[in-house]
Amino acid sequence: MKCITVKELYRNTESYLDKEITVAGWVRSNRGSKAFGFLVMGDGSCFQTLQIVYHDNMGNFKEVSKLNVGAAVIVKGTLIATPEAKQPFEIQAAEVTVEGDSAPDYPLQKKRHSFEYLRTIPHLRARTNTFQAVFRVRSLIAYAIHQFFQEKGFVYVHTPLITGSDCEGAGEMFQVTTMDLNNIPKTEDGKIDYSQDFFGKETNLTVSGQLNGETYAMAFRDIYTFGPTFRAENSNTTRHAAEFWMIEPEMAFADLEDNMEVAEAMLKYVISYVLENAPEEMNFFNQFVDKGLLERLHGVLNSEFGHVTYTEAIEILEKNNDNFDYKVSWGCDLQTEHERYLTEQVFKRPIFVTDYPKDIKAFYMKLNEDGKTVAAMDCLVPGIGEIIGGSQREDDLGKLTGRMQELGLKEEDYGFYLDLRKYGSVRHSGFGLGFERCVMYLTGMGNIRDVIPFPRTVKNCEL
Amino acid sequence: MKCITVKELYRNTESYLDKEITVAGWVRSNRGSKAFGFLVMGDGSCFQTLQIVYHDNMGNFKEVSKLNVGAAVIVKGTLIATPEAKQPFEIQAAEVTVEGDSAPDYPLQKKRHSFEYLRTIPHLRARTNTFQAVFRVRSLIAYAIHQFFQEKGFVYVHTPLITGSDCEGAGEMFQVTTMDLNNIPKTEDGKIDYSQDFFGKETNLTVSGQLNGETYAMAFRDIYTFGPTFRAENSNTTRHAAEFWMIEPEMAFADLEDNMEVAEAMLKYVISYVLENAPEEMNFFNQFVDKGLLERLHGVLNSEFGHVTYTEAIEILEKNNDNFDYKVSWGCDLQTEHERYLTEQVFKRPIFVTDYPKDIKAFYMKLNEDGKTVAAMDCLVPGIGEIIGGSQREDDLGKLTGRMQELGLKEEDYGFYLDLRKYGSVRHSGFGLGFERCVMYLTGMGNIRDVIPFPRTVKNCEL
Repeated sequence: MKCITVKELYRNTESYLDKEITVAGWVRSNRGSKAFGFLVMGDGSCFQTLQIVYHDNMGNFKEVSKLNVGAAVIVKGTLIATPEAKQPFEIQAAEVTVEGDSAPDYPLQKKRHSFEYLRTIPHLRARTNTFQAVFRVRSLIAYAIHQFFQEKGFVYVHTPLITGSDCEGAGEMFQVTTMDLNNIPKTEDGKIDYSQDFFGKETNLTVSGQLNGETYAMAFRDIYTFGPTFRAENSNTTRHAAEFWMIEPEMAFADLEDNMEVAEAMLKYVISYVLENAPEEMNFFNQFVDKGLLERLHGVLNSEFGHVTYTEAIEILEKNNDNFDYKVSWGCDLQTEHERYLTEQVFKRPIFVTDYPKDIKAFYMKLNEDGKTVAAMDCLVPGIGEIIGGSQREDDLGKLTGRMQELGLKEEDYGFYLDLRKYGSVRHSGFGLGFERCVMYLTGMGNIRDVIPFPRTVKNCEL
Repeated sequence: MKCITVKELYRNTESYLDKEITVAGWVRSNRGSKAFGFLVMGDGSCFQTLQIVYHDNMGNFKEVSKLNVGAAVIVKGTLIATPEAKQPFEIQAAEVTVEGDSAPDYPLQKKRHSFEYLRTIPHLRARTNTFQAVFRVRSLIAYAIHQFFQEKGFVYVHTPLITGSDCEGAGEMFQVTTMDLNNIPKTEDGKIDYSQDFFGKETNLTVSGQLNGETYAMAFRDIYTFGPTFRAENSNTTRHAAEFWMIEPEMAFADLEDNMEVAEAMLKYVISYVLENAPEEMNFFNQFVDKGLLERLHGVLNSEFGHVTYTEAIEILEKNNDNFDYKVSWGCDLQTEHERYLTEQVFKRPIFVTDYPKDIKAFYMKLNEDGKTVAAMDCLVPGIGEIIGGSQREDDLGKLTGRMQELGLKEEDYGFYLDLRKYGSVRHSGFGLGFERCVMYLTGMGNIRDVIPFPRTVKNCEL
């Protein structure tokens, strides 16, 4: 049906003022008196709402004045400027048609609900102010990421979700099967007969598309993935979900410096895009969710990211060991408290920490000349800690197989990966950005369950 | 490292002519003589290649002249116009550095390989002309779809992959579990104890995000999904994969007409985008893969899609029953042969077939006033048949629950879905586009295995 969106009214107000138009949306509030009433509606097209004034000259005045929050209406009326009111304009209704009413037990009344409660109604919570803002911004961030890479000529690669291999031994995986669990086929020696499973072998949900992505970087030079990944970790925290989206760019003829340049440019691009395209939502977050948000994001935009090696970072952190729960020393992994201390207290801006000990990083990272560290980089941002992890990849066949032997990885499981080092190997680099962590960072939302439409966590898979 | 891409050289040739530049890429062919040689390289940034002329004044002339196909090189030299040659310019090399050589058994020699053979090396096939074209176009189609919906203000929603419910009973599903299959926990009465599984219940991989998508359309008005979906169907055809991507827009305050308008506009937008942004690739497909491709796509761009009801379509098809393998009559589902006959022979352009019998369509489709048909639409295109399927959704609570009872669906499994009809129900519509089918349609590629980077089909899950 032809009607004007609220967004369009805000964008091109002049074109509609004093004209009869049709709008449609859902009631946010409704105050009736004997002779007239005010109905505030939103249509989901933007953060703003629209006030409708209706009068008792309408045949269904009584019906309209009793409309509950959540009801759907189609309104025909005239757009009038209201220079003295809070909102810039309102509609003087000629007709209000009830498209669908809202039962009296509607769970979203015009009061503030806790995030905990709203998590129990994931099919309705997107109708509230906070989640309207969160999920519109989530959509914009996703698009900004695509735009950033596409404008740079990166090829978007859909790496597979179901996989026969465990990329980096990155942790617990979900198994995928079509076998009847009441009657699992067995081989003669009593083992599970995976030859009878759908793919004829044991399969899992992917934990990373990186290794597949590297094969495409060796063909297209610059590629990125953007898809779901899975971790079956039994960790019930505000930052972990079993199903989340990742962005993994991979670039041929790129070293660690190039890698960090792209990561920094990407974060700045996405922040700019969201500030420009969702100013109302970002102001809302800054006002009601995270008071320092806008200042922090503008700070990121206006600073050059710092650079520090892991070894230098440890020296800095050791001086503050008294104040940490986990004391640091060379060789240990950094905890969030250390990361945040570095980026918030020491550098007061985003930083890259580089050249980590090889023993705390993955087998595919390029060994530095010191023989002890690898060309890895983590990007740490104030307020959150690590947001990006990446590395230059080991492109030397001998060094790579040597490292795999040290770690007990079987060459036959990585034949395709080793082929990349046999046939036109090139220096190359890439990184991973956890999409939900990025959404949390840009919105100030504190719980990953509140930035995923239908979150999957331990013992929770609703809808 | 700083070097110029081949794409940049073609885009802004004038800026680089007669200047010394650095390029990097992989050898496509190499013809040496005693005193000089020609090396053709590509860098994956575009479909075109670049010719390098090198001479025996280079210290490593011998090494370079023996380079195998697939080797990686970094070339410093001067860009020279070659107005009398096939290619518009070439590089006169001052230095050719070998970044990584290519072992003699490199599987991609400079000859034509069959698609069947290339499917056995999915980690390398993207380096061939055909797959360079396929996967660059795949990336562009994905981006064009995002651009189309974002420009229209649609919110991109990430619907979940792991699900506790079977959306539309749409067929065989993959089960997801972390239980030890050698030791499945059982309840006292001998049933599988799903309370001990990761999510505390039986879970599967999604077959559609539509029902989740509808909940967001009731909040944002216009939304779309773009994510992976799964079917565990044991069908080994050229058109079925176990893992594929789908786009599912859903629009509130939209009826079937609005739905078809959006679907038609989307297809035309994507075709235009690809023709404009990948002309070399599209010409390649038209020349080597599918001779009628460009004419067909331009035909789609320049035609208004036809409209015919299912009932009218059956009348047309019945007259041609002698020529069909499957004879049609009112009530039967249309096969590909019928769909292609309608769109290719009768209408000679894309068409929408609407108002199918309710018994061959899903429970959530809106019942028409005749009580027999539903407000469904399939979009059929020449050369392929059905490419889009959609409907207006039943928004009347009573009719919906009535239909669910007829089909034996339990209301308690769809509580969230029924809530949408209780609280501000509105007319709404949506459709699904199989992304891989769209890529096949735009490239002329005949096998779905050749448009997915790492395809998953029955008994096949490589890499």
